Amino acid sequence: MSNKGITPRNQSYSQWYLDIIDRAELAENSSVRGCMVIKPYGYAIWENIQKELDRRIKGLGVSNAYFPLFIPLSFFSKEASHVKGFAKECAVVTHYRLKEAEDGSGVVVDPSAKLEEELIVRPTSETIMYDTFSRWITSWRDLPLKINQWANIVRWEKRTRPFLRTTEFLWQEGHTVHSNHEESEKQVLEALKMYTQFAKEVLALETYGGKKSESEKFAGAVDTYGVEALMQDGKALQFGTSHDLGQNFAKVFNIKYTDKEGKVDYAWQTSWGVSTRMMGAVIMSHSDDLGLVLPPVIAPIKVVIIPIYKDSSKEKVLEFAKDIESKISAIVEGVKIDDREYESVGYKFNEWEKKGVPIRVEIGEKDLDRNGVTIVRRDTNEKSEISINSIGSEINMLLDSIQSNLLSRSSTILQKNTHTISSYDEFKKQLKGEKGFLKAYWCGSKECEDGIKYDTKATTRCLSGEGKGNCIYCEKESTKEWVFAIPY
Amino acid sequence: MSNKGITPRNQSYSQWYLDIIDRAELAENSSVRGCMVIKPYGYAIWENIQKELDRRIKGLGVSNAYFPLFIPLSFFSKEASHVKGFAKECAVVTHYRLKEAEDGSGVVVDPSAKLEEELIVRPTSETIMYDTFSRWITSWRDLPLKINQWANIVRWEKRTRPFLRTTEFLWQEGHTVHSNHEESEKQVLEALKMYTQFAKEVLALETYGGKKSESEKFAGAVDTYGVEALMQDGKALQFGTSHDLGQNFAKVFNIKYTDKEGKVDYAWQTSWGVSTRMMGAVIMSHSDDLGLVLPPVIAPIKVVIIPIYKDSSKEKVLEFAKDIESKISAIVEGVKIDDREYESVGYKFNEWEKKGVPIRVEIGEKDLDRNGVTIVRRDTNEKSEISINSIGSEINMLLDSIQSNLLSRSSTILQKNTHTISSYDEFKKQLKGEKGFLKAYWCGSKECEDGIKYDTKATTRCLSGEGKGNCIYCEKESTKEWVFAIPY
Repeated sequence: MSNKGITPRNQSYSQWYLDIIDRAELAENSSVRGCMVIKPYGYAIWENIQKELDRRIKGLGVSNAYFPLFIPLSFFSKEASHVKGFAKECAVVTHYRLKEAEDGSGVVVDPSAKLEEELIVRPTSETIMYDTFSRWITSWRDLPLKINQWANIVRWEKRTRPFLRTTEFLWQEGHTVHSNHEESEKQVLEALKMYTQFAKEVLALETYGGKKSESEKFAGAVDTYGVEALMQDGKALQFGTSHDLGQNFAKVFNIKYTDKEGKVDYAWQTSWGVSTRMMGAVIMSHSDDLGLVLPPVIAPIKVVIIPIYKDSSKEKVLEFAKDIESKISAIVEGVKIDDREYESVGYKFNEWEKKGVPIRVEIGEKDLDRNGVTIVRRDTNEKSEISINSIGSEINMLLDSIQSNLLSRSSTILQKNTHTISSYDEFKKQLKGEKGFLKAYWCGSKECEDGIKYDTKATTRCLSGEGKGNCIYCEKESTKEWVFAIPY
Repeated sequence: MSNKGITPRNQSYSQWYLDIIDRAELAENSSVRGCMVIKPYGYAIWENIQKELDRRIKGLGVSNAYFPLFIPLSFFSKEASHVKGFAKECAVVTHYRLKEAEDGSGVVVDPSAKLEEELIVRPTSETIMYDTFSRWITSWRDLPLKINQWANIVRWEKRTRPFLRTTEFLWQEGHTVHSNHEESEKQVLEALKMYTQFAKEVLALETYGGKKSESEKFAGAVDTYGVEALMQDGKALQFGTSHDLGQNFAKVFNIKYTDKEGKVDYAWQTSWGVSTRMMGAVIMSHSDDLGLVLPPVIAPIKVVIIPIYKDSSKEKVLEFAKDIESKISAIVEGVKIDDREYESVGYKFNEWEKKGVPIRVEIGEKDLDRNGVTIVRRDTNEKSEISINSIGSEINMLLDSIQSNLLSRSSTILQKNTHTISSYDEFKKQLKGEKGFLKAYWCGSKECEDGIKYDTKATTRCLSGEGKGNCIYCEKESTKEWVFAIPY
């Protein structure tokens, strides 16, 4: 551990990640196995992510709605491949009442209050939503139907890790219904594009987005597309997916519509979602050994002002700091002045550095007589002087420049760590060393995919493009190049 | 049923309520008993409520956070009176895995995946939050702690009714921790005031707010304050509560802090919340036999423009309507033009009337040559002419005037239906007739409260004031006047 309580990345990348979450006060484990508490600072980041994404989802003509937390067990038996992929590790509600224990020790489950049919806490909402959609849709006039839900989701994960994999997590799930496959396919790609653009413009993350292989696709889908980000340890993090469900669920849940000519057909569906897992991607991509680094767009506090004074200069410095605060706040949202008397300046520097506040403004006695103040930008930790005349607009521009610097850093890292590879030896060597994204041809057979995974832990992340090459594993001639990586 | 599918209020108030929810497409029952689907239009209203309330909650210096959906069973045995009031009708998770049925018929609960300790789906979050707070709080520096959570809540209600009482509902729960009782009491009243102001300024509802009687208070609280609204059938709807928890939970969950002098003491706590039940209050207060009536502040669509044309005039009218739309949109949010070709003008009028859109703008061929259009305001259903020169600002003013008209109507109804009563005969007569809020003295004894409830179904809703009078039931001299009503 460093003196700041953050393990350096080169010592243990996974401990570094946990330390950042702890020291930046983003989340913590709760008394319920695998469920985390998202702390106020972490939740404020999530709110910013949500707000920005919600705006974009609505921009696609999608309306929010809310469906039940519980799903009747029998619904999971309806779509056979959906069952296979999902219905196993779920929280099951079997009773609906407690009673006082006979020995007076507290409460126990009332055995007489057993449900006739068990309820599953939603691991995803296709089944409960589509059961409802079948009643909403009868005519072409009802299509397209575009619904999104912000909700909590439960999957009983064996090994959990804050944000990346938790028993309960928060997400958004979009579900659309269309009158033809052309339109639903377009919707799948539109959602995918929304996610990659969101990653870029809001999270400052360059990603790969593309079609998944057969083995990696969503249970019940015709095709799944994924968004893949690169972490600093060379592993890939899938943070969003978009599914072309074809007519698979429509047939099972009987979602039919009558077209303009009076012909009845099953509808075509899509679903797509991102979750609090994105928080993990943001933390792991941008942060450093000093703590969290946040893209300004999602930073709850964008600028922190730290007044530095002796008893004799206290009043004057604080007044000056407040003046600076109001100058910046006139143009920039999320400005905070840290005037806590019981903490030292060093402690404050350290705290806001750990929390990834993009810009720190230092205001001392010496600044009273001059026209500039010292600022430190968190992305590069560079100190500089800034004139106070136009401090609001200068800080605003600097925030933009931090945002774009983080993105260009992410792009560079992605490019630098993407390797086009044609020999399996080279492939294995790369995955033993720095890892990263590997572009290679694959024949499409499950045997080759499994063999690669067995040898290297790497899987196909998404389709890279079409062309001509030899399968990296069996060397058979192949037409598809894939992005491989070791996934989180 | 009327020809619009809405039962008139004087025929059946409760069926009218269900018809409004159905015809305005606010919500519907799901396949899970007691759980509703909140449909896009209903959810858009909830989003507006949430946005406005979230802003006000943050204005009190409260931060949002997120705590687990599940609570270990043992937590409910900790606070004895909390158990009594809450822990009975809950959804209980006992298993964490499904498996494929041996007969191949689908999935069943895997009996080997039984949890060691059962988990309760949160019926409220005091216990799980305060378990965490005990780790967050050690010093006076950590206080006050002010946390809010937007979450789904489950209570296994026997009889459910959309929005008013559902097995799963959505809410906000504020939880604060303080270093002294004076401060926590102040917080309790601040939250109460926020709710009554919110009811007034946003929902256009005049309410009573005040302390609850012993029997009506929250399980585990020292004092509970409630906000009570009057429905059109003369019954009261409690739509928010604010609790002074004293040190009750702090002692059970061991929330202690060291003060500036080094003395260790238990902290003082509050909790307060409102839920999707507010939606029920809004629907039942303002609406009429034609459908929903919405206060403009929370209306997803504030203005609907309906173009009326023949084939020959279609192009010109639509162009003109779009021009009007952009003029209004320049000043007002939530403007919609209904240019669906497959629905008649009558159908459109009816649909938006049922959905409570505050202003309808009718644009026909005759309007092309003149400077005015016809508008209809939903609160009074009055038709008038409006000049198109300054249509944006005129519509904006009209929305303000609809909002304040709904509030003044609500105030008048509340006043008119509040009766100061001094004889029990009169009290009983009033509750058999028009009902409403009854102000009467009560000695404070449980016997009298129970007697009144038994005779009339009315309960104390909240404290009205201090003075001198005789208990309405036993006629003993009393110092407290209470607001009584038959509650939902």
